[in-house]
Amino acid sequence: MRRYWVPAALSSELPDTDCSPIRVRLLGEDLVAFRDSEGRLGLLEEFCAHRRASLYFGRNEEGGLRCAYHGWKYDVSGQCVDLPQQPAYAPKIAICSYPCVEAGDVVWAYMGPPELRPDPPSVEWATIPGGQRYVSKWLQYSNYLQGIEGAIDSSHVSFLHRYEIEQNPLLKKTAATDFIKGDPNPEFDIDRTSGGLIVYAKRRDREGRAYYRITQMLMPWFSFPPPFGQHPLLCQAWVPRDDESCMVWSISYCTDRALTAEERAAMADGGGINVTYVPGTFLPVQNRTNDYLLDRAAQKAKKTFSGVAGLVAADVAIQESMGAIVDRSLEHLVHTDKAVVETRRMMLEAARAHARSGTTPPGVSGESQRIRPGCVILRAEADVREFLKEGQLRVGDRPVMSV
Amino acid sequence: MRRYWVPAALSSELPDTDCSPIRVRLLGEDLVAFRDSEGRLGLLEEFCAHRRASLYFGRNEEGGLRCAYHGWKYDVSGQCVDLPQQPAYAPKIAICSYPCVEAGDVVWAYMGPPELRPDPPSVEWATIPGGQRYVSKWLQYSNYLQGIEGAIDSSHVSFLHRYEIEQNPLLKKTAATDFIKGDPNPEFDIDRTSGGLIVYAKRRDREGRAYYRITQMLMPWFSFPPPFGQHPLLCQAWVPRDDESCMVWSISYCTDRALTAEERAAMADGGGINVTYVPGTFLPVQNRTNDYLLDRAAQKAKKTFSGVAGLVAADVAIQESMGAIVDRSLEHLVHTDKAVVETRRMMLEAARAHARSGTTPPGVSGESQRIRPGCVILRAEADVREFLKEGQLRVGDRPVMSV
Amino acid sequence: MRRYWVPAALSSELPDTDCSPIRVRLLGEDLVAFRDSEGRLGLLEEFCAHRRASLYFGRNEEGGLRCAYHGWKYDVSGQCVDLPQQPAYAPKIAICSYPCVEAGDVVWAYMGPPELRPDPPSVEWATIPGGQRYVSKWLQYSNYLQGIEGAIDSSHVSFLHRYEIEQNPLLKKTAATDFIKGDPNPEFDIDRTSGGLIVYAKRRDREGRAYYRITQMLMPWFSFPPPFGQHPLLCQAWVPRDDESCMVWSISYCTDRALTAEERAAMADGGGINVTYVPGTFLPVQNRTNDYLLDRAAQKAKKTFSGVAGLVAADVAIQESMGAIVDRSLEHLVHTDKAVVETRRMMLEAARAHARSGTTPPGVSGESQRIRPGCVILRAEADVREFLKEGQLRVGDRPVMSV
Repeated sequence: MRRYWVPAALSSELPDTDCSPIRVRLLGEDLVAFRDSEGRLGLLEEFCAHRRASLYFGRNEEGGLRCAYHGWKYDVSGQCVDLPQQPAYAPKIAICSYPCVEAGDVVWAYMGPPELRPDPPSVEWATIPGGQRYVSKWLQYSNYLQGIEGAIDSSHVSFLHRYEIEQNPLLKKTAATDFIKGDPNPEFDIDRTSGGLIVYAKRRDREGRAYYRITQMLMPWFSFPPPFGQHPLLCQAWVPRDDESCMVWSISYCTDRALTAEERAAMADGGGINVTYVPGTFLPVQNRTNDYLLDRAAQKAKKTFSGVAGLVAADVAIQESMGAIVDRSLEHLVHTDKAVVETRRMMLEAARAHARSGTTPPGVSGESQRIRPGCVILRAEADVREFLKEGQLRVGDRPVMSV
Repeated sequence: MRRYWVPAALSSELPDTDCSPIRVRLLGEDLVAFRDSEGRLGLLEEFCAHRRASLYFGRNEEGGLRCAYHGWKYDVSGQCVDLPQQPAYAPKIAICSYPCVEAGDVVWAYMGPPELRPDPPSVEWATIPGGQRYVSKWLQYSNYLQGIEGAIDSSHVSFLHRYEIEQNPLLKKTAATDFIKGDPNPEFDIDRTSGGLIVYAKRRDREGRAYYRITQMLMPWFSFPPPFGQHPLLCQAWVPRDDESCMVWSISYCTDRALTAEERAAMADGGGINVTYVPGTFLPVQNRTNDYLLDRAAQKAKKTFSGVAGLVAADVAIQESMGAIVDRSLEHLVHTDKAVVETRRMMLEAARAHARSGTTPPGVSGESQRIRPGCVILRAEADVREFLKEGQLRVGDRPVMSV
Repeated sequence: MRRYWVPAALSSELPDTDCSPIRVRLLGEDLVAFRDSEGRLGLLEEFCAHRRASLYFGRNEEGGLRCAYHGWKYDVSGQCVDLPQQPAYAPKIAICSYPCVEAGDVVWAYMGPPELRPDPPSVEWATIPGGQRYVSKWLQYSNYLQGIEGAIDSSHVSFLHRYEIEQNPLLKKTAATDFIKGDPNPEFDIDRTSGGLIVYAKRRDREGRAYYRITQMLMPWFSFPPPFGQHPLLCQAWVPRDDESCMVWSISYCTDRALTAEERAAMADGGGINVTYVPGTFLPVQNRTNDYLLDRAAQKAKKTFSGVAGLVAADVAIQESMGAIVDRSLEHLVHTDKAVVETRRMMLEAARAHARSGTTPPGVSGESQRIRPGCVILRAEADVREFLKEGQLRVGDRPVMSV
């Protein structure tokens, strides 16, 4: 994972030069992020080299972050640039830092070897005008893999989100609804790409038609769920804070138009794949301490399938209910879990190849990231790959497939 | 313990067919309980065989509990009866389940080997009409043994409950009060029975009389405290949730009459051996987070001995104060701890004999469960065993001894 | 540490004979303290010898603390003086107890070998009339050493407390302010004493003057920060509850006058080196659960250096932010950390000498405790030791140095 750019913070968490530093936890490390007087981004280990006080209480001013205890000051590279008690010693002091770039309203960090730093993130939503994009995130108390395994698994939508897709303002009134409700047993097919997987989930109706939901998994934590009609496209990233929790990034975007005010309002209100928050935190209002506001009456009345309202909250409830790290030796997988299996296989292969010979893992290159999800309705006997023209699931000048 | 029927849930927690599933923790296992469309009881391991999502969020409908994630459905035996993605695979999928019976407003589970399943519970309160019985339970953060050790120890009543027995509407105005307060140093005598122990605690007065409190301990977690006058009889069961917490079951019952409305109201209000609850939980309002609402002024004024009001709350305070598992190597036992010693000995013997040769432990047979507590006043020089006629501490047609 | 008198409780926590017992945690031990019917102080292990119930729920009456479970009663020496069930056994039963003395509004305990018990505490504030003294304490979630390392480190005052010293009613309007703000790089010099260290921190101004802040460290947990003008003198003690938390004692006192009503009111309001509390606890209102009420706007506006208001709260925030036990192998110390280094060295030497040959550690003798802090302004080229007359940093008839 250290070979990739890691989503670390919302740009809006570091709104101005010399703004307040924030805490960031990534890949098991406690860090602080800040934006210096010239607008440069810094992501440093949390603790001062001197006496190990937290730099979270530091002063961000005049080109660096100054520890509140004795005034040692670090620039965005982690270099100590002011050491009041022994100035000559400053050049010899540096703390761990990670380079950052900003793209798509997100601060990204690179935590790997400097010489292997890849091109900046190239996922489509990070490259389009800001008006076409809405980015949010939430804190989830499960291993990141439980999240991505849900995201690439179209089959659960026929169950867990069965009623939600009819009601959610950012998903409803599309051809998807009838197919998803009508055929709970999609056929899965999978292609490997240079960056991850294309997952085809084929559902049929009684008129001989097939509806393909085409999800893209991009290593190591992205999923691009298929669109719902003309609603904004979706992307999610499950980024490990540590082995037992992750920050889930959620992006809704349009490739060819600005989001409407109604869409933005619905997203801010927890619609689509967004949540509302416990004030002052990124913890969803519906969380494990309150059983996600489980409503058995709504479950009984088929307003929700699980009793948990909202697309995200239902996913979080299920994924956290498995425990922080699910014991996969106890699973019983079936044909609709093909994408789950293939994702695990691809991750293990990439990790082993990297450990063995330093092989660059899939999804690091910018080119491999320029992908799109899609969905299409064909005759059931047609071959979706035949139908797909070159580039239709790539970012390009052709419209994304959506029905 | 897996050789016994285990109190698992109140019948009222599963009030109707297709009602909401509930979480149950027993002997270190996380389970879900439900009542299916035909009224059958199910007690299953909490996690779906497929991807290990919690079945607590499942839908209870049409003869089984359906996982909210992908719709796998289990009947009360744990058999998968619907597996939408791969129907032919369903017969091969089953999760752990435990048979249940319902008796005495309680759902009981059997967690042992099927071929050794005993007769249904035969404790008297489970076999009488519902109007003669009141059942409650609470969550306690101590090992179950600390609980039962308190329950069979009549001597602590002279101290911890000294003032309570004069005030509690379901204990007061009986001959017990003067004897318990007057003689803090009861003589203990013990008989082994086929199911546990009969514990005789003899207290004297200055007129040459002896008051015997005759408690029955029934393996592996029951105690039948002696009655207080004509107040309802009492039974308690300390059932392990795990090594560090237990669910305490509390039953008040009459063998020959219905409980009165006044008695029921007092029990619901925390009188007798009942508690009031933190809303939505089985945690007592008086609990370790608030020091059991310790009232030092009431302690000083001899309204309570410990400062903790209520019979149950005082016991819970003391038993939890020892720590989750008390280090018994630091104890100093005296003659009034005979029942404690004998209970530990009997449990160890039973566990060893079972481990060695599968010997059925005491208290499994229905016959051994048909017992009653009692109390009686005799001349001090009389022999209580001589006085006791065959059957007087057994369920039968003779009245329970009570003064 | 068991060779010293340990601050255990405020006298006001045990206000009367037969008052309520309180919980005390010291050096990793859970204890209860009480004042018996004759006013004698008892500090006992928390758990009854009989069945290990907590004596916190006990009755303090008629010359001892009686366990609420079975009435065993202990006197202040831990001796069982009443064992109702088996009276003859009582003389053989005793629980761990520690002798206590009361001095300076504080109950002190001695937890070491009886034959090595030292003279009562002789720190000056414990020997003066009560009207000249204000004692408070708070609970801190860090190792005690992180606390004392901050207290003897004058250099951090130029940073962390930079703005506080101008505003705090019990520190402001003294010569200290300009020197502390003007020279962030004090020269440290250290003398060993029979009880600890004298730490000289020398700051210069542009007029050729030097301002010495003279802190005394007294083994094993005291610091005497230098005075601020004519404000009350200060002393702090970081007393380990266990390896990961400490109780911090804070004393403000005058050697020659009573505290004024205004001073007392300011202290009760959290001024000086005091805090305000979460009701019913010794936890500061500003604590780790609320990020010490961090106010970034005040930090930006240079009302506070760290964003945390208050002298104590800022120290607690920094010291707790390091983690419960900071990993000192990751530090980078500089010349202003001389006192930190020397304190650690002295502690290690004392512990090793004690372990090796039972050598009485520094600071145990009453004489070694009769010390005072001080501060003075001299010509920069003067020798402060030359200037200091015999006794000026000792308790005596000469005024404490303060400017």
